[in-house]
Amino acid sequence: MIVNRRIGLWILMRESLLSLVLLCAWDVVVVVMFQIYHQDWMEQPTLPISLIGSALVLFMSFRNNTAYNRWWEARTLWGAVTNNSRSFGRQVGTILRGSPELARAMAAYPHALRGALGRIDTMEDVRRLLPEEMLRGIEGRANIPAAILFQLGLGVDARARALGIDGALQGQIDRILSDLSNAQGGLERIRNTPLAIQFSVLPKLVATVFCIILPLSMVQTLGWITPLGSSLVGLLFVALDKIGSDLQEPFASTPHGMPMRTIARTIEIDLLQSCGEAAPPALAAVRGVQN
Amino acid sequence: MIVNRRIGLWILMRESLLSLVLLCAWDVVVVVMFQIYHQDWMEQPTLPISLIGSALVLFMSFRNNTAYNRWWEARTLWGAVTNNSRSFGRQVGTILRGSPELARAMAAYPHALRGALGRIDTMEDVRRLLPEEMLRGIEGRANIPAAILFQLGLGVDARARALGIDGALQGQIDRILSDLSNAQGGLERIRNTPLAIQFSVLPKLVATVFCIILPLSMVQTLGWITPLGSSLVGLLFVALDKIGSDLQEPFASTPHGMPMRTIARTIEIDLLQSCGEAAPPALAAVRGVQN
Amino acid sequence: MIVNRRIGLWILMRESLLSLVLLCAWDVVVVVMFQIYHQDWMEQPTLPISLIGSALVLFMSFRNNTAYNRWWEARTLWGAVTNNSRSFGRQVGTILRGSPELARAMAAYPHALRGALGRIDTMEDVRRLLPEEMLRGIEGRANIPAAILFQLGLGVDARARALGIDGALQGQIDRILSDLSNAQGGLERIRNTPLAIQFSVLPKLVATVFCIILPLSMVQTLGWITPLGSSLVGLLFVALDKIGSDLQEPFASTPHGMPMRTIARTIEIDLLQSCGEAAPPALAAVRGVQN
Amino acid sequence: MIVNRRIGLWILMRESLLSLVLLCAWDVVVVVMFQIYHQDWMEQPTLPISLIGSALVLFMSFRNNTAYNRWWEARTLWGAVTNNSRSFGRQVGTILRGSPELARAMAAYPHALRGALGRIDTMEDVRRLLPEEMLRGIEGRANIPAAILFQLGLGVDARARALGIDGALQGQIDRILSDLSNAQGGLERIRNTPLAIQFSVLPKLVATVFCIILPLSMVQTLGWITPLGSSLVGLLFVALDKIGSDLQEPFASTPHGMPMRTIARTIEIDLLQSCGEAAPPALAAVRGVQN
Amino acid sequence: MIVNRRIGLWILMRESLLSLVLLCAWDVVVVVMFQIYHQDWMEQPTLPISLIGSALVLFMSFRNNTAYNRWWEARTLWGAVTNNSRSFGRQVGTILRGSPELARAMAAYPHALRGALGRIDTMEDVRRLLPEEMLRGIEGRANIPAAILFQLGLGVDARARALGIDGALQGQIDRILSDLSNAQGGLERIRNTPLAIQFSVLPKLVATVFCIILPLSMVQTLGWITPLGSSLVGLLFVALDKIGSDLQEPFASTPHGMPMRTIARTIEIDLLQSCGEAAPPALAAVRGVQN
Repeated sequence: MIVNRRIGLWILMRESLLSLVLLCAWDVVVVVMFQIYHQDWMEQPTLPISLIGSALVLFMSFRNNTAYNRWWEARTLWGAVTNNSRSFGRQVGTILRGSPELARAMAAYPHALRGALGRIDTMEDVRRLLPEEMLRGIEGRANIPAAILFQLGLGVDARARALGIDGALQGQIDRILSDLSNAQGGLERIRNTPLAIQFSVLPKLVATVFCIILPLSMVQTLGWITPLGSSLVGLLFVALDKIGSDLQEPFASTPHGMPMRTIARTIEIDLLQSCGEAAPPALAAVRGVQN
Repeated sequence: MIVNRRIGLWILMRESLLSLVLLCAWDVVVVVMFQIYHQDWMEQPTLPISLIGSALVLFMSFRNNTAYNRWWEARTLWGAVTNNSRSFGRQVGTILRGSPELARAMAAYPHALRGALGRIDTMEDVRRLLPEEMLRGIEGRANIPAAILFQLGLGVDARARALGIDGALQGQIDRILSDLSNAQGGLERIRNTPLAIQFSVLPKLVATVFCIILPLSMVQTLGWITPLGSSLVGLLFVALDKIGSDLQEPFASTPHGMPMRTIARTIEIDLLQSCGEAAPPALAAVRGVQN
Repeated sequence: MIVNRRIGLWILMRESLLSLVLLCAWDVVVVVMFQIYHQDWMEQPTLPISLIGSALVLFMSFRNNTAYNRWWEARTLWGAVTNNSRSFGRQVGTILRGSPELARAMAAYPHALRGALGRIDTMEDVRRLLPEEMLRGIEGRANIPAAILFQLGLGVDARARALGIDGALQGQIDRILSDLSNAQGGLERIRNTPLAIQFSVLPKLVATVFCIILPLSMVQTLGWITPLGSSLVGLLFVALDKIGSDLQEPFASTPHGMPMRTIARTIEIDLLQSCGEAAPPALAAVRGVQN
Repeated sequence: MIVNRRIGLWILMRESLLSLVLLCAWDVVVVVMFQIYHQDWMEQPTLPISLIGSALVLFMSFRNNTAYNRWWEARTLWGAVTNNSRSFGRQVGTILRGSPELARAMAAYPHALRGALGRIDTMEDVRRLLPEEMLRGIEGRANIPAAILFQLGLGVDARARALGIDGALQGQIDRILSDLSNAQGGLERIRNTPLAIQFSVLPKLVATVFCIILPLSMVQTLGWITPLGSSLVGLLFVALDKIGSDLQEPFASTPHGMPMRTIARTIEIDLLQSCGEAAPPALAAVRGVQN
Repeated sequence: MIVNRRIGLWILMRESLLSLVLLCAWDVVVVVMFQIYHQDWMEQPTLPISLIGSALVLFMSFRNNTAYNRWWEARTLWGAVTNNSRSFGRQVGTILRGSPELARAMAAYPHALRGALGRIDTMEDVRRLLPEEMLRGIEGRANIPAAILFQLGLGVDARARALGIDGALQGQIDRILSDLSNAQGGLERIRNTPLAIQFSVLPKLVATVFCIILPLSMVQTLGWITPLGSSLVGLLFVALDKIGSDLQEPFASTPHGMPMRTIARTIEIDLLQSCGEAAPPALAAVRGVQN
């Protein structure tokens, strides 16, 4: 996630450079063809640019809204992971009268989750935090984070029975584990359900066709300054398409993805501090990008 | 659900081919009539294309938004089924101290549910997983998945009493069953309430009329290249209509439907692994389509 | 609710016929006036059709979105009634160890609710299902469904005490009754709060004015084919207005209303079957319409 | 809240009359200036009406959506007050085995709330219903409704202890009080957070400028019938602005405000009837307006 | 937050003055260049203003919707903090039989939270309200508000055990603490996740380009009154951009930020009054702005 506005603008420009160059090149080709070689077939009346434009706007606005909502829902669900792991830490410290082992195990959970969502290996962090016994319990499970939640449930149950905790209070902890399970399921849903193919592919296609036609419909009236007008308009729609495709994969490890490592670290710090253990420092943004 | 972008594009093209051919054919007919036979009645001034276009955009954007929201709500509700069955598995393993029978019975539930929603026979999977006694209990019930939830409630109650589990903890399990009931009810609501007839029928109608009129209003100015412009614009609106109708039936067994089989299998794997039983492998996408 | 697409289209056409005839008649009058009597005052330049059109689009899109959201919220709340009554049935069968009387009383609830919402008399169904004692309890109450929930609460409390049920488990049943109360309150809110007068009246008015002006602004250029273009465009906006007004009263007993009878019957079947009693058959759609 | 369509239309017309007269007057002035004195400076080419129009549409659609959402959220929150006070009544009648005093105290709550939201004095109703002891408890508190909820909590706690009610059941009642607190907080949030100043002021300003420019850009082509076209279009945008400003203050005591008195009375009737006391009649709409 | 409409309008004007002056200056430069020096290259046909305009509208409407939703979500979450701290006060006063120390500690929480969100030092208020022991407990913690919630959990647990409170009732208090944790996490999410860089930077850029091109495309037809038309249109889009950027940082200490100080004070008053302590007066708006 880009957190520095200036650097972000720079990243955006770098990523859009190729499109811009291609756009301009095509615009110049059209103008030169028209002005110098004066191809007859180009003396056509205006193509139906505005109708294509309005269909394009419909496509774009729908796709970008959906992509943004996916991104924001994913962010909100990670927020729920943060909140509930924090509440779990509080409950362990109060209802279960403190259990550093359970707090550390919970700190391993977001690391396992970010590994599963981003399809990267985070077992190092998990092994660092998860107790030996739980590590054995999650071996061979297809869904590691869900297996950790299961182990946490076992740990809570064992400790609650040992201390003779009231069932209603244990039920409150179980509810937090269910809420974590819901948040995790929501994140998996977003990862496993790509944006409907119609929305991830067609807008780019339509925008490209639009950009190709655009100078052809302007060159008769704008003449030599066609590339200026055409590139400007084209760039806008290319930018709109780029916004959508940047947002539609929230778990990708691009500058536009969720800062899952930072979030997992924040949770870890909070949980370790809450049971009085030394916590690693927070992660800072690297060159304007948090990840 | 299409998960492979390239194959998805191919499927979309194949499905749209007929519309495209019809569009082009009509455009060519119009041009030929105009250019060769030069029908007088076609020398009409521009028809009110832009007004029809703006009404069409209103229809389309409303229908597609609604259809997408239905699809995504259905997906979210299936996610809730996944999450809650997972939480149930954890509770069975911790609060009820493990009961492979109940875990297997819960694994049968999503299979029964996808059968009821897709109107297909999934009793084979249900019989494979549901204990003999529960199978007798659901016989003759109109709503099989609801009957399974009822049997699960009976099983939980019996086991909780046998073990002398605290009522508050049993209440947490009951709450998960209620949440499953809510998710199931939501899915049934979406299946039983088709998109309002006005939105499933009129957009296609208006788009068709629009595509018929389109070349008539372009041929005077565009001449021989009319089919190019007209087909392009027409195709866009046909594509928009197709997106909506693809999404409006989330439980259909088309490439655009929910991947209910895959989801039910994922739940099954998770539940069986959580009580240490052998689980079948996950389902892979077949030719870019998950179902 | 229309469930058959073909019949639905037919119903829509029948309902729109009058508007269509009026539209065409007016268009023809305008053309004849212009072409034959050639009124001078009609040789006016284009009226501000596109500005009126864009305001109309704003009105329409807002109204229709709102009306649809009302309809869908009402449907979702009825879904909540279904889900929670089903959960109640499960709880009665498990936690309260079966009580056909309570299950039957719950089956009476949706009938009472649909009566109150649709302002129709459903006391026959209520009397058929509600135990004698509860019938006395709801006498003279202004809000019958709420009174039934109250009686259900009394029944649950009595049975829970008789069986010595844990308070936490009884609390879970009480929570389902509160959820039913919330759903009922939501439905009453929708019924008692008509769509803001500005949205239920103005769109029709503006659409009518628009349709009257439309041919006046087209006749100069389109001549004899004016009725074709004008009626087509007019019909679109009339259809948009009709969609909104069809949806804005979800509890009306028109083909566009909620299928409350069918839903209440579905709930009844589920509850009666769950306690092993004979259930009436499901209601089928009559001539493509479910009610 | 206007509940009678015919009277509502009449109210709307009365409220819009002044704007309409001003609009027409200005239009006539412009035409007369142009046609009779024929001011040269008016022979200008079309001003950028369509660009201003599209910005105006953006402003309006955003403002009206927001204002409507505020209104509807407020209505939904009042619905939550209704539902939860009804659930409280059921719990008092079942779990707490009937306590007319607590039911009456709850009936006082919505009256106190509507007083606080509408900044009107409703202490008469509160005193009529609230027991003497609680009245002393709320003296001098800044937030009267919150103080009543506090007193209700005390009352529930005292009675639960006296009867030896299970903690889990008392917890269910406490949860209803928290839900009431949430609904109240939501209503206070809406009242204390006026619609962002940009949206409550700018749309009217822009609409006014638009209406002033409008005839200037039409008079050259429309001539003497300018007032007709210009007033019609202007009236549409004035109406759109009026809709928004009517809805943005849901607690104002105008015909467009929430019917808080009626709702509070409905709650009172329900609670008094539920404990067998005589209830006042429901409030009827006065001249088509409910308040 | 601006609460006085007149002063608010004044603030808006002051903030927009610079943009307006720059806009006008550029418009005048363009007109003078065109009319006096009559640069040939300006006799160009209309630039693609309407296409740029429609892309700009898309950008703006998306950005402003998103920014407003962020703002309103933040406001709603602060509302949740208010509601839950009030419920906590009620529970302390009833279930825990009154504990001024816990109520005061809760009153410190919103002060700590507004400090963390606004990155300002509010430790003075926290120290004033938080008991000595808890102050020691939060020392050195990275997240002060979360640490206070942890201390509150400890305090509740200690008191509940001392009084022998039922676990289910203590669970209700724990749930309120979890809800506070959720609200806090949501607020942190909004602060830590700036609006996607594409939306915070591009709209301003596009609006600026649009305003530069605008007079160039009007001067040929509007002549000397170009600045009037061009500045008006330009100002509208500048205002739209300003609305969005005002709203996108809800925790900034500008006149457009959340009134966090006022909210924290309101919570403090309510909690102190509920346990019979003297409360400070409510904060009044200063020069039409609440903060």
